[in-house]
Amino acid sequence: MKLPKALAFDVFGTVVDWRTGIAEQAAAFLARYMPGTDPGAFADDWRNLYQPAMEECRSGRRPFRLLDALHLETLVQLLERRGIGTAAIGEGELLDLAYAWRRLRPWPDVPPGLAQLRKLFPVVTLSNANIALMIAMNRFNGLEWDAILGAEVSRSYKPTPQAYLASAAALCLDPQDLCLVACHHSDLAAARACGLQTAYVDRPMEYGGARAPDGSYEQAWEWRAGDLLELVRVFTSH
Amino acid sequence: MKLPKALAFDVFGTVVDWRTGIAEQAAAFLARYMPGTDPGAFADDWRNLYQPAMEECRSGRRPFRLLDALHLETLVQLLERRGIGTAAIGEGELLDLAYAWRRLRPWPDVPPGLAQLRKLFPVVTLSNANIALMIAMNRFNGLEWDAILGAEVSRSYKPTPQAYLASAAALCLDPQDLCLVACHHSDLAAARACGLQTAYVDRPMEYGGARAPDGSYEQAWEWRAGDLLELVRVFTSH
Repeated sequence: MKLPKALAFDVFGTVVDWRTGIAEQAAAFLARYMPGTDPGAFADDWRNLYQPAMEECRSGRRPFRLLDALHLETLVQLLERRGIGTAAIGEGELLDLAYAWRRLRPWPDVPPGLAQLRKLFPVVTLSNANIALMIAMNRFNGLEWDAILGAEVSRSYKPTPQAYLASAAALCLDPQDLCLVACHHSDLAAARACGLQTAYVDRPMEYGGARAPDGSYEQAWEWRAGDLLELVRVFTSH
Repeated sequence: MKLPKALAFDVFGTVVDWRTGIAEQAAAFLARYMPGTDPGAFADDWRNLYQPAMEECRSGRRPFRLLDALHLETLVQLLERRGIGTAAIGEGELLDLAYAWRRLRPWPDVPPGLAQLRKLFPVVTLSNANIALMIAMNRFNGLEWDAILGAEVSRSYKPTPQAYLASAAALCLDPQDLCLVACHHSDLAAARACGLQTAYVDRPMEYGGARAPDGSYEQAWEWRAGDLLELVRVFTSH
């Protein structure tokens, strides 16, 4: 396998620990409006509304929307399903909680690992996050990328082929010279179907220790590592 | 005037000294194929083909093309006008010279000034450069931005309104909360017409000391500085 010419990163799960971050930021809100709710389970339930919301756009039933807006919509939806009327909650408070997805911390290996990977390759984000969300998150956690690509630049959500192919095109690369780095087998499978190289990074705590829902997509990926520091060694020793 | 919420930078001229960089990189090529040609004048002539090439796309006579491709086209055009048949020149050699625009050095105030401005605001590029060109240039000169916006993200070249408005939209900002930083009065005038704030930075050596061609567009801009370090002081003392 030839080394890739650039790396494109999935972000939620692969780079940042969304479950811990959402749970921590939602805790005070939950204590007030939904006492007794487990914040980790709330984070899981919110995340579970993410794929159906994007699917409405991917299928063409709705036009493309920014992920920030979907986060607010799915929050309202989640609260209403629990019988919490959102009219009584200030719009500012709802928006602040929706923006919790802009304030997520990276796994501990990410800051040093990303910096080392960027010495080897251009490294971009290839996430369903919109650009303003990614900018805010990077400023929150101090991460630097060569560019923010993905959903908003391609106007399509992963795993549609356009999301991967438009990102390779923006880098002026053939798909086989771009490598997706992700902890999700489903994301890697879709990237491989577009001709991209694939690097799996294990994030066993993404779902708080529970099994990932996409295990059936697992394949023999070109590259594989336990974290980004090991991924650096995998590439440099190749 | 309220402080902006983000800054968007013009790049060629405002950030990097294209004339010196192109002249230096073209010198060996010129000595071989066009002996006696002044490298600075060659840089000026090449740059002069830039607006007409983009105008073909802006006017709709041609579809949008990446700036990298326009640089190669205008190089071939320039050589052919001088009677230099490009068939005898290797394609690799032509492409390498076209990519000289990816390898330009910043003015000396830019590395420290940009780092300080990024502590105050998110700072993005709003250039006619394509994403791969900007990534390569940033890696060449070590500059870091919050995002690469501009022509490729908006699929339109400055000074069309879409280039400015799509960049504000990608930042989820109202136009009046985004400030264009540029050394070109024409660029600032177009941004102002879209409702953006404007910051003029003086680059008297952009054309090697010759007068800028767009002096007639000069207006009383919201912000004004001799270089980026002064621009930091202008914002922080406001």
